[in-house]
Amino acid sequence: MTRSAGGRPQRVDARANRGRILDVAEEVFGRGGETASTEEVARLAGVGIATVFRHFPTKAALLQAVLVRRFEGLREQAEVALKSADPSSAFFDFFRHLVADAATKIAIGVALLDAGGDSGGAAVEASNELRRAVGALLRRAQQCGAVRDDVELPEVYALLVATSRAAAHSGLDEEIRDRTLAIVFDGLAPRGQV
Amino acid sequence: MTRSAGGRPQRVDARANRGRILDVAEEVFGRGGETASTEEVARLAGVGIATVFRHFPTKAALLQAVLVRRFEGLREQAEVALKSADPSSAFFDFFRHLVADAATKIAIGVALLDAGGDSGGAAVEASNELRRAVGALLRRAQQCGAVRDDVELPEVYALLVATSRAAAHSGLDEEIRDRTLAIVFDGLAPRGQV
Repeated sequence: MTRSAGGRPQRVDARANRGRILDVAEEVFGRGGETASTEEVARLAGVGIATVFRHFPTKAALLQAVLVRRFEGLREQAEVALKSADPSSAFFDFFRHLVADAATKIAIGVALLDAGGDSGGAAVEASNELRRAVGALLRRAQQCGAVRDDVELPEVYALLVATSRAAAHSGLDEEIRDRTLAIVFDGLAPRGQV
Repeated sequence: MTRSAGGRPQRVDARANRGRILDVAEEVFGRGGETASTEEVARLAGVGIATVFRHFPTKAALLQAVLVRRFEGLREQAEVALKSADPSSAFFDFFRHLVADAATKIAIGVALLDAGGDSGGAAVEASNELRRAVGALLRRAQQCGAVRDDVELPEVYALLVATSRAAAHSGLDEEIRDRTLAIVFDGLAPRGQV
């Protein structure tokens, strides 16, 4: 798809810059806290602040792009898990992964709200795609008998959101988080099997 | 304890005013939203704004008192439940009650933070008392075999906080909330009994 010898490196550079800015922004804003700033992102990405604003006109636009990319990354992981030979582990491991990942995602969401943006539009779409992928993982786990077939996605997703929020906000240590998930997972197991 | 014929009615009035202000503040701030104000509390309680501020020097002080009273009320309910002849229902019903109650409590907590207060001090103490009461309900439910004896309060409380937050923030409808709790309760049930 290269059109001209002169044009390509510039476009490639721009794409590389965009990716690096997103990586750094995810790291910086994902840590949470008041001090995270677009200036820090520019500095750590090794680009000028003008370059950041050329790619993302506002801080909110940057944060929304970070959030969308994160949802898309998780959805891709869910789709890989969907091809696993072990649908039971695929479902439960992905559930556990999402909960462990939640603090970063929530910190970015909070920064987005603080920056006057909302998590609507593209982020909602990406989040819905992730939810659909989790639904597919759930159905496969139910088909193989690892999850009771009388539960449906709304309550399973509510539990996922609930444990994610609890893990992120209460700063649950890893052991309590695992014990909490163990109760939820037992609740999801077919009757008489646990 | 009446000291003088003149003094008592005034003290009784003051106490009645204080109680009414707290009732109304709980109602007004528990609904959430941007419009809740101390002025509205004074108006609905039928007292002047000066009376509100005589009892509660700041909005944060008012909100903290509301939160403390709410925690204390819940703890008293837990202590009543503790005397129930059916420890299993006592535990699960109280868990369900706390989750249903969460939206109001969280809205008051958010208003308190917005008012520049923190939920520390007396509110933390009252919240810890509630946690201890839930711990006692849990132990009784375990003693009668309604809850597996290999779960402990930290993970049970984490689940309580988690489902409360999810119910409050995501505005879960009642049916999904009940289905979510059903999974959690099955997870808490002894193995082989469900």
